[in-house]
Amino acid sequence: MKYVIVGGVAGGASTAARLRRLDENAEIILFERGEYISYANCGLPYYIGDVIYERQKLFVQTPESFAARFNIEARIRSEVKGIEPGKKVVTVCDLNSGKRYEESYDKLILSPGAEPVRPPLPGIDGDGIFTLRNVSDTDRVKEYVEERDVKRVVIVGAGFIGLEMAENLHEYGIDVSIVEMADQVMTPVDYEMAAIVHQHLKAKGVGLYLQEAVTAFRQTGEGMEVVLRSGLILQTDMVLLSIGVRPDARLAKAAGLEIGETGGIKVNEYLQTSDPDIYAVGDAIEFPNPVSGRPALAFLAGPANKQGRICADNAVYGNRRKYKGSINTAIAKVFDLTVGAAGLSAKMLERLQIPYREAIIHGASHAGYYPGAIMMDIKINFSPTDGKLLGAQVVAADGADKRLEMMSAVIREGGSVYDLMELEQAYAPPYSSAKDPVNMAGFVADNMLSGKVKMISWREFQAMDTESTLVVDVRVPGEFAEGSIEGAVNIPLDGSRAEYRNLPKDKTIVVFCAIGLRGYIAARVLMQLGYSVLNLNGGYRTYAAVTAGKGNPVNLFSVPCSGPVNKK
Amino acid sequence: MKYVIVGGVAGGASTAARLRRLDENAEIILFERGEYISYANCGLPYYIGDVIYERQKLFVQTPESFAARFNIEARIRSEVKGIEPGKKVVTVCDLNSGKRYEESYDKLILSPGAEPVRPPLPGIDGDGIFTLRNVSDTDRVKEYVEERDVKRVVIVGAGFIGLEMAENLHEYGIDVSIVEMADQVMTPVDYEMAAIVHQHLKAKGVGLYLQEAVTAFRQTGEGMEVVLRSGLILQTDMVLLSIGVRPDARLAKAAGLEIGETGGIKVNEYLQTSDPDIYAVGDAIEFPNPVSGRPALAFLAGPANKQGRICADNAVYGNRRKYKGSINTAIAKVFDLTVGAAGLSAKMLERLQIPYREAIIHGASHAGYYPGAIMMDIKINFSPTDGKLLGAQVVAADGADKRLEMMSAVIREGGSVYDLMELEQAYAPPYSSAKDPVNMAGFVADNMLSGKVKMISWREFQAMDTESTLVVDVRVPGEFAEGSIEGAVNIPLDGSRAEYRNLPKDKTIVVFCAIGLRGYIAARVLMQLGYSVLNLNGGYRTYAAVTAGKGNPVNLFSVPCSGPVNKK
Repeated sequence: MKYVIVGGVAGGASTAARLRRLDENAEIILFERGEYISYANCGLPYYIGDVIYERQKLFVQTPESFAARFNIEARIRSEVKGIEPGKKVVTVCDLNSGKRYEESYDKLILSPGAEPVRPPLPGIDGDGIFTLRNVSDTDRVKEYVEERDVKRVVIVGAGFIGLEMAENLHEYGIDVSIVEMADQVMTPVDYEMAAIVHQHLKAKGVGLYLQEAVTAFRQTGEGMEVVLRSGLILQTDMVLLSIGVRPDARLAKAAGLEIGETGGIKVNEYLQTSDPDIYAVGDAIEFPNPVSGRPALAFLAGPANKQGRICADNAVYGNRRKYKGSINTAIAKVFDLTVGAAGLSAKMLERLQIPYREAIIHGASHAGYYPGAIMMDIKINFSPTDGKLLGAQVVAADGADKRLEMMSAVIREGGSVYDLMELEQAYAPPYSSAKDPVNMAGFVADNMLSGKVKMISWREFQAMDTESTLVVDVRVPGEFAEGSIEGAVNIPLDGSRAEYRNLPKDKTIVVFCAIGLRGYIAARVLMQLGYSVLNLNGGYRTYAAVTAGKGNPVNLFSVPCSGPVNKK
Repeated sequence: MKYVIVGGVAGGASTAARLRRLDENAEIILFERGEYISYANCGLPYYIGDVIYERQKLFVQTPESFAARFNIEARIRSEVKGIEPGKKVVTVCDLNSGKRYEESYDKLILSPGAEPVRPPLPGIDGDGIFTLRNVSDTDRVKEYVEERDVKRVVIVGAGFIGLEMAENLHEYGIDVSIVEMADQVMTPVDYEMAAIVHQHLKAKGVGLYLQEAVTAFRQTGEGMEVVLRSGLILQTDMVLLSIGVRPDARLAKAAGLEIGETGGIKVNEYLQTSDPDIYAVGDAIEFPNPVSGRPALAFLAGPANKQGRICADNAVYGNRRKYKGSINTAIAKVFDLTVGAAGLSAKMLERLQIPYREAIIHGASHAGYYPGAIMMDIKINFSPTDGKLLGAQVVAADGADKRLEMMSAVIREGGSVYDLMELEQAYAPPYSSAKDPVNMAGFVADNMLSGKVKMISWREFQAMDTESTLVVDVRVPGEFAEGSIEGAVNIPLDGSRAEYRNLPKDKTIVVFCAIGLRGYIAARVLMQLGYSVLNLNGGYRTYAAVTAGKGNPVNLFSVPCSGPVNKK
């Protein structure tokens, strides 16, 4: 058998290695148009920031090592220009010599990846404007930073890579500004979670221009001007475009393979394209999202690598292994915070018109009585009917990745908030609590679904009629004194239960505490006394984050004085 | 309704708080024979070690705060001496006054916990011999340590609490020796995993006496002698017994409630005892283990707290919520290591005669190219027929808790090694790899089950006939030179593939590398060349750990020079 693979990074290299392990006698040729194969794509920002110091570390395999270990021929600087599915040949251009030749295949695997979006803005092709996708881009950026002694950078696009670059360049000593069209950074998390990141970026001294767009780039004598839609002009030495990527499906399209509605190469559950002898993996494929059921793209290294293994098995043994799709579990380090998401955000659920409810939970990263516990912010989106977990988001300075894994495992299994309740977390004081925040998220959702409490979101709360509403802060007076919601009255839960009977019956009562737990207990009391009561989702911590800059301070890392009950 | 709860720590306090949230008007009385309710049981070793500095932090709730927040009456120093299920009353002894009285109930919840095992050894009731179960024990130990200026301690029993105490007392400046009857510490993990902990304890200067038993304690002028079965005598100032605990089912038994074969209070899936008006939660209950299906105990805070919530719901609304049992997810910090397990160990599977296979994986805690990656040790036990995940164990200096959570979630769902393959881990370089070690564990198991590789355990390998076996170290010469298995020949995988054809066909070939990956690739080559070949499970790293002290050094924290392929 002769296998030809187009694209030598994550998905392509994985497929190639597995093919060899399955078939010692096959001929395997891997074409890569770039200079390198199997490199650490996700490590590139850290190499620019000198966090990864040795360039050599970026390379998992080289053509030489690939040959030595796997007996695979990797041809770099070799661009596949066309596929003739009928003849089962590809046309290859040797980018060094310019020579073209044909290579036949029995099975072809496409792993062309994605390409960065570069909007046709005036001045975008000027000096000092970069995208970052591969090692060569990285070398160019690093050289520019060092040789031009860059002092200021504007990053356009506040996605995961944009923020990773912001951190790395800032830590390198460069003044960083970020321009983003949306009202928030990091699309996969919802606004109230992103709001925490906004606070953190500002605290680090990063310029953040939200709801702004670049209209032009202008070269000046001492650098560049980035012109924004609002009229604002940012002076900078360098621009990094991280607006997004799109699947590179050009080759597939030209070959007549079916392209999906998202622009990705359409594959079936065996990762097979519309031509049975051509498989495709990685960033370029379209596959139904397991949560929404809708066609989707996933620009992630993990799924690409897992697809490689499945694809190789199917190419060698026939279609036996099914790919189940990616729930887009993604994570990034943003300075001292970790930000992650899996499944669908509320924004996305609304766009897809999928009904959902949401719960925002704050819990300690480990037992509050053990040193070093910090507050985490967790949000879950779930089905209002059966509690199916639709999405999970975490922002925290510690323990975020673990909680995301726990929830991601449940989403992937098609599980529900009831599964979150039952997750048997590994508990010892340095690691968790007797009720982990992920369990708490399940408990809150269960209480909502079973009608034990009605929640109100910060957005709904802001839109409420103040005349008919009584806002009750159930925290202790010391907490109230440090800052509360305007107009709230302070009736502490602990010890003041009797006073709840005297509240006016003709108003809707909105209760809140620091994180939501005492608010819930107060709501239970009031409900059973016959009141119409709503508990503010996420408590004062979330409210303060979304109204930050309007006088409500957020302490990202403190555990409030009165945490969850029965945490051992 | 009137609810009476016996036992005011984890399970009892949880139940009480939930009862109040569900029923504002109920009468709720909680009896606790000790002086404290709702304290941080798992924090006690850290309070003794001064890691938790403020004693106050150990208390999640006090009777006063419980009354103020929940309107629950908690009566401390009040021991329930008897239950009359027919009359629905309990007899209570006020331990301060000695007075006895009756209290009626509509629903009774038992949460009596477990009691430490104290074998009837000569001298065991002498001065300076302690068990550690509650705050009062802790106060006594702490006072003894400080007032007697304890310099040496012998810990009997190397379970989780024994090792937590070893760490805390050692860090406090006390010379620690551990005596354990088994050949390993920490029963829930298998020998090869415990062997890593043995090495670590020795490196820290902790005395470790395995396969030893105490036969007597003798008071001397300057302290105490601990006499061991081997004849060895340990001089010490203090002894801590952490041999184990057993469910405290005395009250339930005397009341005629059904007791299970493990000695725990038998409950149904609604946590109801054989009397429909009596529920039970916590360490004292017997419930089928979800993995084995056999009656089991679980001495864990997490399950106790979760049971409390379920029990309260059933007591108030009738039996609606099912408890699904505990898979015994447990974790402990042991100096610089984290050690955890979920599901069943190989030892336990053998005892229960449940067929299983095992895979040992070593992988980096995060992307090897990002600073700070360390090697983790992971073991999974799984069904040889359908790949059902039966148990998971992790030992690592970083990232262990997260991997345990990922695998624990799969075990709890009744999932398989195929689910491990598909877990969509949150990958960015500081957190994971494009193929997380947990995915790798799934891949290895899949390769075993589909016949792509035959593995041999270190135990089977040691028992092999050396005459008919050829042992091939496929690592690079530099690794081979630093230490290898006696008698092994070095034929590196990379670049020496051709030499494999010249190996003798009449011998069984055992291949190994550092962690198992190159061994697997070599095994694939040899298999396809027609050889009978076995890959050493866990590679040289595991072999070196189990043969440590016999000249094979283990570097716990280094990532070997040639890690997994395609890790981005």
